[in-house]
Amino acid sequence: MDTLTRLETTIRQRIASADSGKSYVAQLHARGLPVIARKLGEEAVETVIAALSGSDEELTGEAADILFHLIVLLAEKGVPLADVLAELDRREGTSGLDEKASRAQQEG
Amino acid sequence: MDTLTRLETTIRQRIASADSGKSYVAQLHARGLPVIARKLGEEAVETVIAALSGSDEELTGEAADILFHLIVLLAEKGVPLADVLAELDRREGTSGLDEKASRAQQEG
Amino acid sequence: MDTLTRLETTIRQRIASADSGKSYVAQLHARGLPVIARKLGEEAVETVIAALSGSDEELTGEAADILFHLIVLLAEKGVPLADVLAELDRREGTSGLDEKASRAQQEG
Amino acid sequence: MDTLTRLETTIRQRIASADSGKSYVAQLHARGLPVIARKLGEEAVETVIAALSGSDEELTGEAADILFHLIVLLAEKGVPLADVLAELDRREGTSGLDEKASRAQQEG
Repeated sequence: MDTLTRLETTIRQRIASADSGKSYVAQLHARGLPVIARKLGEEAVETVIAALSGSDEELTGEAADILFHLIVLLAEKGVPLADVLAELDRREGTSGLDEKASRAQQEG
Repeated sequence: MDTLTRLETTIRQRIASADSGKSYVAQLHARGLPVIARKLGEEAVETVIAALSGSDEELTGEAADILFHLIVLLAEKGVPLADVLAELDRREGTSGLDEKASRAQQEG
Repeated sequence: MDTLTRLETTIRQRIASADSGKSYVAQLHARGLPVIARKLGEEAVETVIAALSGSDEELTGEAADILFHLIVLLAEKGVPLADVLAELDRREGTSGLDEKASRAQQEG
Repeated sequence: MDTLTRLETTIRQRIASADSGKSYVAQLHARGLPVIARKLGEEAVETVIAALSGSDEELTGEAADILFHLIVLLAEKGVPLADVLAELDRREGTSGLDEKASRAQQEG
């Protein structure tokens, strides 16, 4: 099993256990969706800043933080990571990365 | 090969081709790192909003957009996705998710 | 009347007019709160990037965009800008900027 | 003198004093521009979330935090708040809020 799928399994178990004294994930779950969403947003800000003014090592750590909190957010909402990966496959498989470009041009 | 690793390979090829007329990735590369970082930040904002006020389908699409632009950012900086996944493995393998919790408590 | 208060008055009139064909503010209002919140988040990302890798002129423009969209967001929610300014006065008046420092240290 | 201009004066004095043991602003200045930019980005994320899922009181507090950190960021970069306000006046005075709308439609 690949890293992200395994991480998703662990995170879903921590959320289900609801033992907020034990794990960071259970604590986030106890604090609720807005806090989890906030953490993802904050990690994205930190990733942007690491990319522009930090080291490769910092960027690696921040990118790991984004992936981690994105999976927590998806798990909290009950959205399978597999659906997100399938969406990426679909975009590349059918119309390719160019589909994204056409979408980007339509955005306000 | 899993979805994200395959996507990384495609993205690196698009960046290397530097044919900005053809693909969205090549266009992003031509516009430079600050624009790529901006796109990642914007997708994170959209993911936060989709999580709080959108449908599961919207969240799936926004999560795909974050992953896509995160991989473009890493590729632009020459940081392998494998390093990020290895960092996630390392955190879970040694001290587990609890290490993140202790880090979170130290942050200002 | 100072710039921001005058801008708030104009923005509230545009929202009240609800004539979405005419003004940018009325269009934002028609698209709804999540879109307005998204715009604020995106302008903040652009401000961060301008501060780290742009010119002073770009930063000035992005800071203006943040202020503009923050006032639109407040108006959309019916929160007076005066309340926000009063909160800033209160913080400085009673316990000063140091209050913020102590708050920052408590945050997770 | 209005609230924001007075706040700017205080913040510039705190930065100039460089006595990082005393004030939150001097501490931010000592930590450097990327940390200040990060704080602004984080406050924007919190404002977005307060607008979508918080109380008016929370939104008021977060909006105050954005204004505060935006002025710290401008002061750190040596950009006068007056320039930002002049830019807002200019936009409204010449081509009005509609200028922003036309700009928004050009963005990718």
